[in-house]
Amino acid sequence: MRQSQLFTKTQKNAPKDEMSVNAQFLIRGGFINKELAGVYSFLPLGFRVMKKIEQVIREEMDAIGGQEIFMPSLQPKDNWEKTGRWSAMDDLYKLKDAGNREFALGPTHEEIVVPLVKKHIQSHKDIPFAVYQIQNKFRMELRAKSGLLRGREFLMKDLYSFHANEKDLDAYYEKAKTAYWKIFERAGLKEKTYFTFASGGTFSRYSHEFQTLSEAGEDTIYICEKCKNAVNKEIKHETPKCPVCGENKFKEEKAIEVGNIFKLMDKFAKPFDLKVTDSDGREKNLIMGCYGIGLSRLAGTIVEVHHDEKGIVWPESVAPFKVHLIEVKSQKSKVKSEAEKLYEGLLNNGIEVLYDDRDESSAGEKFADADLIGIPWRVVVSEKSVAAGGAEIKKRSENKKEIIAINKLVDYLSKK
Amino acid sequence: MRQSQLFTKTQKNAPKDEMSVNAQFLIRGGFINKELAGVYSFLPLGFRVMKKIEQVIREEMDAIGGQEIFMPSLQPKDNWEKTGRWSAMDDLYKLKDAGNREFALGPTHEEIVVPLVKKHIQSHKDIPFAVYQIQNKFRMELRAKSGLLRGREFLMKDLYSFHANEKDLDAYYEKAKTAYWKIFERAGLKEKTYFTFASGGTFSRYSHEFQTLSEAGEDTIYICEKCKNAVNKEIKHETPKCPVCGENKFKEEKAIEVGNIFKLMDKFAKPFDLKVTDSDGREKNLIMGCYGIGLSRLAGTIVEVHHDEKGIVWPESVAPFKVHLIEVKSQKSKVKSEAEKLYEGLLNNGIEVLYDDRDESSAGEKFADADLIGIPWRVVVSEKSVAAGGAEIKKRSENKKEIIAINKLVDYLSKK
Repeated sequence: MRQSQLFTKTQKNAPKDEMSVNAQFLIRGGFINKELAGVYSFLPLGFRVMKKIEQVIREEMDAIGGQEIFMPSLQPKDNWEKTGRWSAMDDLYKLKDAGNREFALGPTHEEIVVPLVKKHIQSHKDIPFAVYQIQNKFRMELRAKSGLLRGREFLMKDLYSFHANEKDLDAYYEKAKTAYWKIFERAGLKEKTYFTFASGGTFSRYSHEFQTLSEAGEDTIYICEKCKNAVNKEIKHETPKCPVCGENKFKEEKAIEVGNIFKLMDKFAKPFDLKVTDSDGREKNLIMGCYGIGLSRLAGTIVEVHHDEKGIVWPESVAPFKVHLIEVKSQKSKVKSEAEKLYEGLLNNGIEVLYDDRDESSAGEKFADADLIGIPWRVVVSEKSVAAGGAEIKKRSENKKEIIAINKLVDYLSKK
Repeated sequence: MRQSQLFTKTQKNAPKDEMSVNAQFLIRGGFINKELAGVYSFLPLGFRVMKKIEQVIREEMDAIGGQEIFMPSLQPKDNWEKTGRWSAMDDLYKLKDAGNREFALGPTHEEIVVPLVKKHIQSHKDIPFAVYQIQNKFRMELRAKSGLLRGREFLMKDLYSFHANEKDLDAYYEKAKTAYWKIFERAGLKEKTYFTFASGGTFSRYSHEFQTLSEAGEDTIYICEKCKNAVNKEIKHETPKCPVCGENKFKEEKAIEVGNIFKLMDKFAKPFDLKVTDSDGREKNLIMGCYGIGLSRLAGTIVEVHHDEKGIVWPESVAPFKVHLIEVKSQKSKVKSEAEKLYEGLLNNGIEVLYDDRDESSAGEKFADADLIGIPWRVVVSEKSVAAGGAEIKKRSENKKEIIAINKLVDYLSKK
């Protein structure tokens, strides 16, 4: 894409009401726009990042047999009363119809997915299976001050699995855990992410969270010095020893909860009477697991983890483009023609490229924008580079610069 | 995908509270689930259809330079008061925060996109441009009785274009019109769709709708017998002659509004003071166009237009799969092995296939399901077909059946 066509502009200064690093860089770079505290629009660059994250998550959910669906945000009050959460959930947005009928604005979808599944499942032969969606969620957050880390409206992947017995749930739970690790690895977060034991509510001993170390995190976790699993502060007093290895030496850290998985058992099957006939002809409640990842929070976390003082340093898997091609304005027409040629070459070879072809911007402004936006490969075509026989190439994450012949660059980048 | 894995089941009978053909077939086929009047979940088959429609629309919007973004549903009351629509719009869902702050649940996004654009646009050099999104919308519909044709929550593409003057808006409006025709052609609706003049509100003489003929339609249009443009009933009394050719002979028809395009002029630029400095240094309001297509309504319309008494007949462009492969249960192991071989062959060649490998279903049940679900190509592997040297192939839209050798089928279907 030509940067001269991109309707967003970068901003030199961070907005005053945004304290978080992720919101500052994402707003300055033109990735997002703040509409309300905890409510953001995704602009073209931010939208591309979200689509990349979505694709990573979709591939890993499909790989564990997840069937993708799309459920609505407007949810009937009846369903929420059945599970007791209409009154129990403080952060539920409620609204009324013209006829004064009430709805919830979905923060999660157990109240929808369970009655839906009930219409399609009759026998034990129909299970196990799992469904998921990538969909906007709503939560009445009072402290939405962390950019994309805590939203009133946020994009989330929620997967629900259905099983005949605990053994089967346990096996799928492990599969989902592995899929989550793949997602965090692909998103560049695995190294800083810890598998964390958290509260299981009234129906399961523990739930599990994936916690990414960051000073911006609102959670405190205790990492076992021996086995590197962690315990959330909320259950630390009742879990003095590591639930995995029994060790009792921990390191306290601040962290962002980037995913959580939960054995729901029959908590939601019961109120909706979701049963199947097993092979002996007996009816029994299904048991469920649920598995969440916030896509917008994940994007914010990536920025918190991958940035320097100049801007974002996107991992290539989720970067809005692979290459940022910069034409440094020159009197010599060769600079423009070489840059244009390279742009066409990259496009023709399917390499995603943002081409800074803006006439009115100085080299310094373009370099500063490139650092702020954080695309992995910066390629500069200037009088100097052309005189040296090519274009200057630099990784956003490294300082090393190199001149590569323009006719070899496409091939070079294709292999990276 | 293996049908034995698909968690949804077809239903023999249509739900009693659904009068519309689209909802009946889509629910019976397991494409959608009704949550509330006008609120549906998209199940795996329906989700696939929506993704196909989304891709068609995205490609055509990208082709006219649309920059894709994603705006939120929660919108500040302030913005809606500025445009006067907080009180003027009857079907606006409103909700409150814990602190009693009020929000609208977006039925459209002018109130968000205009202030957003204002932060990025300074000079006449920054225009024209267009942004679009594919996003859930909310409308407090009191008569949501037409399945996907009228939703309280529905998926919509909305594009907004920004211009310095009317001439530029007019030129883009024509481009968008052409893109819309391409979309309706690709969705199999062009033949029955008419360009229709409708009310332009207070700021433009006309808006324009794309109306698809259908008995299920809630609109009445008058098609000019000479030039085949149409006029919506709502302006018929003030438009006795065709606004295109001046003829006054019309044919009255029922139709579904599948798209509409609107010259907003400065209606929304004004309240938000969206101005640019033109080349003479003078400030002037931008003018805008907006361009909508409801994706869920489009899916419903396709079903209304493309079905027979047995079920849906999807156009290939938006079908959930290209091929429905049916294995007719047999004592001979060759039938299963040939069907499996064919399934692998289709998958390996990137042909989307739903493979009915269910052991418990009879041939008759499988054929009835295939007709209901409406995938374009039905391929049957049975004792009879294997004895005849291959598989039986049939188009959903035709009666003709043909036996083709199994080792030639993948190639045959690749070329279709």
